[in-house]
Amino acid sequence: MLIIAERINATRKSIREALEKRDVEFFVQEARRQEEAGAHFIDLNAGTEATREVEDLRWLVEVVQNEVNVPLCLDSANDRALEEALKIYTKDEVMINSFTAENDRIKALLPIARDTKAQVVGLAMGGGGIPQSVEDRMQLVDVLVEAVEKYHILQEKLLIDPLVVPVGTDQNQGKLFLETLVKIPEKYPPVRTVCGLSNISFGMPNRKLMNRAFMGLCVGYGLHAAIIDPLDRKLLSIMFASEALMGCDEFCMGYLTAFREEKLEK
Amino acid sequence: MLIIAERINATRKSIREALEKRDVEFFVQEARRQEEAGAHFIDLNAGTEATREVEDLRWLVEVVQNEVNVPLCLDSANDRALEEALKIYTKDEVMINSFTAENDRIKALLPIARDTKAQVVGLAMGGGGIPQSVEDRMQLVDVLVEAVEKYHILQEKLLIDPLVVPVGTDQNQGKLFLETLVKIPEKYPPVRTVCGLSNISFGMPNRKLMNRAFMGLCVGYGLHAAIIDPLDRKLLSIMFASEALMGCDEFCMGYLTAFREEKLEK
Repeated sequence: MLIIAERINATRKSIREALEKRDVEFFVQEARRQEEAGAHFIDLNAGTEATREVEDLRWLVEVVQNEVNVPLCLDSANDRALEEALKIYTKDEVMINSFTAENDRIKALLPIARDTKAQVVGLAMGGGGIPQSVEDRMQLVDVLVEAVEKYHILQEKLLIDPLVVPVGTDQNQGKLFLETLVKIPEKYPPVRTVCGLSNISFGMPNRKLMNRAFMGLCVGYGLHAAIIDPLDRKLLSIMFASEALMGCDEFCMGYLTAFREEKLEK
Repeated sequence: MLIIAERINATRKSIREALEKRDVEFFVQEARRQEEAGAHFIDLNAGTEATREVEDLRWLVEVVQNEVNVPLCLDSANDRALEEALKIYTKDEVMINSFTAENDRIKALLPIARDTKAQVVGLAMGGGGIPQSVEDRMQLVDVLVEAVEKYHILQEKLLIDPLVVPVGTDQNQGKLFLETLVKIPEKYPPVRTVCGLSNISFGMPNRKLMNRAFMGLCVGYGLHAAIIDPLDRKLLSIMFASEALMGCDEFCMGYLTAFREEKLEK
């Protein structure tokens, strides 16, 4: 599982405050802790206030990029914020999170993804919101794949988020998501899948339990990348165990290494 | 998920000793604790020593059956032990665990299952051991289904255990099991699936973590019944959460009730 570490997200109050204070040490520590916990990408989300996002995202990239070995995932739907941040970005690899299956989002973001050779997350969501059947979501998947091809971006660079809707609003949402998850690489083998899985438990009690159970199910249905808090030890434990059980962890080495490094819950 | 509570198993040393001492209070408490924790059947296994099993299993049935409201699962491959125990059994519902896809086991056990209207567990194992492909296991599933039909036992009474082989011996065993799990009700809709899932983690560190991750995957792939320790709170927590996520827990009521009864881990 590709782990995209989600903690540096300015829609969270503590992050917002540290960002306003320009607290360099705070962000360096947050980024390093997530890398040490196993992150493959550090997600940076500078909030959604258009007036500040351009400057804030660039500042976050400047502060974090030289403090970790892993690449960054720039989490914004604002093409200007992405462009400015990418101008000063110095690492080889980068991920852009995200565009939707809407023409204006495609036109604004895909040229940037193409020119910077970024991996890019596409959301299975159009102008009409999130479709409520596997078939309708797959139609938006088709739009996303056609979009990257139009911009001569390889399918290998595309990660599709089939979008998690809380199971508390509709008990069929978990299964609907998982079934879409299976269909995407069946239809487009080079395309990977990604999700921010914690939305599944919105409105339910004991959210973290539900999130880690969902992690196990996502591994079972072949999710490639997860936007998560890598410091959540119980979540990662279920991820490692599920990967070993699904045969996608050769000789269970990932599980056994995590055990030896005392990363696993009992 | 139908929970078959496994703790009263005389292959465990503490149970063996209590059985030798004829410790009534011990077994009454074990049975009641498992029922309170949510067991739907209490499994009784009197060990495998042929000289004692007949008497020991009958004694266990006598001691336990009036102390719980749930039915018992008589866990023996010994037709004489089963016959003697069933003679004194007073509840309406009963489960027999188990027979294999071998002619002598079929001939010995299925007449008893038929005459007592028992639910019966069939293991996807023949004289040649456990087959190493989904197709070969499905051939034994065919044998098990044909066997119950031959004895005019409804498919609804049959639970098939596709057999869990440790993932530590072969990393593909988890996936192979799960794929067989899906195929059984696809081919025989009235037949249910069952397993004793802890064998998956044999030889691995942190077995309980692996067992509960496997529980999640089993829910995800449609397992109907699990032979487990219902006192394992973390295991049951993942089970409840996974059922809610898979849409097989109407309005998430099982999950929410377990939460209110403080049965869920955080």
